Amino acid sequence: MTSELRKDPVLGRWVIISGERSRRPNPFRNYTTNIESAGPCPFCPGNEAMTPPEVLVYRSKDEDASSWKVRVVPNLFPALRIEGDLDKKGEGLYDMMRGIGAHEVVIETREHDHNPATYSQDQMVAVINAYRDRMLDLLRDGRFRYVMAFKNHGAPAGATLAHAHSQIIALPVVPVRVNWETEGSERYFEYRGRCIYCDILSQELEDPRRVVVQNHHFVAVAPYASRFPFEISILPRKHEAFFWGLSQDQATALAEILQDVLRRYRLALKDPPYNYIIHTAPPGYPTPDRYHWQVEVIPKLTEAAGFEWGSGFFINPMPPEEAAARLRDLEQVMDVPEGHLVSGTPSRSGGS
Amino acid sequence: MTSELRKDPVLGRWVIISGERSRRPNPFRNYTTNIESAGPCPFCPGNEAMTPPEVLVYRSKDEDASSWKVRVVPNLFPALRIEGDLDKKGEGLYDMMRGIGAHEVVIETREHDHNPATYSQDQMVAVINAYRDRMLDLLRDGRFRYVMAFKNHGAPAGATLAHAHSQIIALPVVPVRVNWETEGSERYFEYRGRCIYCDILSQELEDPRRVVVQNHHFVAVAPYASRFPFEISILPRKHEAFFWGLSQDQATALAEILQDVLRRYRLALKDPPYNYIIHTAPPGYPTPDRYHWQVEVIPKLTEAAGFEWGSGFFINPMPPEEAAARLRDLEQVMDVPEGHLVSGTPSRSGGS
Repeated sequence: MTSELRKDPVLGRWVIISGERSRRPNPFRNYTTNIESAGPCPFCPGNEAMTPPEVLVYRSKDEDASSWKVRVVPNLFPALRIEGDLDKKGEGLYDMMRGIGAHEVVIETREHDHNPATYSQDQMVAVINAYRDRMLDLLRDGRFRYVMAFKNHGAPAGATLAHAHSQIIALPVVPVRVNWETEGSERYFEYRGRCIYCDILSQELEDPRRVVVQNHHFVAVAPYASRFPFEISILPRKHEAFFWGLSQDQATALAEILQDVLRRYRLALKDPPYNYIIHTAPPGYPTPDRYHWQVEVIPKLTEAAGFEWGSGFFINPMPPEEAAARLRDLEQVMDVPEGHLVSGTPSRSGGS
Repeated sequence: MTSELRKDPVLGRWVIISGERSRRPNPFRNYTTNIESAGPCPFCPGNEAMTPPEVLVYRSKDEDASSWKVRVVPNLFPALRIEGDLDKKGEGLYDMMRGIGAHEVVIETREHDHNPATYSQDQMVAVINAYRDRMLDLLRDGRFRYVMAFKNHGAPAGATLAHAHSQIIALPVVPVRVNWETEGSERYFEYRGRCIYCDILSQELEDPRRVVVQNHHFVAVAPYASRFPFEISILPRKHEAFFWGLSQDQATALAEILQDVLRRYRLALKDPPYNYIIHTAPPGYPTPDRYHWQVEVIPKLTEAAGFEWGSGFFINPMPPEEAAARLRDLEQVMDVPEGHLVSGTPSRSGGS
């Protein structure tokens, strides 16, 4: 079957049911399976023909055309297809539409063994710019109500290829989580007349127990009601609803703080698998004074699973104040030449 | 620190922040760690003194007092404490209360190497009765607004001890997922004047593509908008909001269908890790004609993680119609003497 979007009739949540994706190598991977595949890496230089043609490419100046820095290509096993109409319809009490959307892969680097903790800042800025540029392009398609960019690092976090990449998905519906966020922040705005995220930011900065690191544009905090150990939220200081509104100066500052956070994970948590997700208001969101974009970063350390899926209830064994303190206290250790982080020492780069 | 319940100020979701739990052996287990611990099993007969005293015990008739069948004991590393007042308070814009509640462990069997797929039906009925009896007892405490029973089977599904057990948690708040369910089914009831789950049941039975198995009291279906491959919902045919309203005849039928589903997982998916969760209306729920209790069963086959946590958006590579067909088609294979399942053959019991 081709992809479908189906709505949970009780919860109102849309799910992509994607027959295509089960054609991937190891769609239901065993827990013992290693992420390394047998064949050549489709994301390495020289193997560009193994991926669909690029939708975006950045090249370093003064280099030849084959010398790319970041490539964005359609996903070979897309959860959603770009062609066609939504074709909404009912099936008794169920609602569905065709799986129209875009599913792209951002190949973040030429280097097979690098990752955001080891990139130059310039490389990380290019990755962030790729998210913004692809989002802006995809949002020109009137069928898409939301676009999200996220990264799965490491097999336990959902990555299926080792070469560093992230994903962009354009959707014909707004994910429920985004609706809950905008509804929650609108409720607060109606009551207080202020953005809740701006208020969170000022409360966290006033009593900085949960602040991990900050720069002139961003603050990284362990959220008050963290669901997961060492969960981090990166909030822009300047109120802005849409991620794609970020300036080049902000992009540089975001690269800096995101890499800083990921390097702290690497040092404190022994190179853990992790996910990051960019949360933005949906395009055309009518009250941009009431939402504040942010980046959520979640290391995958615990194996809690279906219980939380089923209940929506989370038990976090690590108080966020303690998580923030542990990540902050690395400052001494972090103050080393960048090359050190790349090569690593046994205590720093041991895999999980 | 002792446990706290903290509310996410934007999403309204409560999280248990539990300093206690990080004292467990391996609170942040590595992905390579095996579930087998070094010492003696605290849940095996003879080691009863390793657990706190029982809050419930079932014994086989005509056996001596030490010959228990199912034991329920307080969790040695509880996420919530039974003593004290809720002590609700604010911290700036945040809300919290003390971690008052109950956290109990149901030791399901004397046999270290058994699990629900290998129990006698009589044993499974005893486990289900233990859920009901403990819920009824806990709900006499006016501080608790919800009580949930769930099972994590296998390390990737969150189990930290190999000996078969499940958990019961009594909470001073209703989990958001439960609120979303009751809100969704109330919306439908206002519009149609009928229980949405009853309508789902009759639609699924009329076109049984997603029905896996049924008996005189229950129907097991792969939900229309399944988030996970081989996800199953077990719905009682008779409308009833509260799990603890089940009769002994229903308890027997639930044991039968739940064991049937878990044996199908074992055969079709090679003994996968899984979770099951009992969904019930909160105690005192004022409109019991609008909610329908059910059991959700989720095998843990994919490693999708933070992305779904962050976005609330799911991509399921396995259409539920295909999942149901694959599980149904085992009927031939299942028709073997029960002992066969216990001992297993390489093709049936190979671990993941």
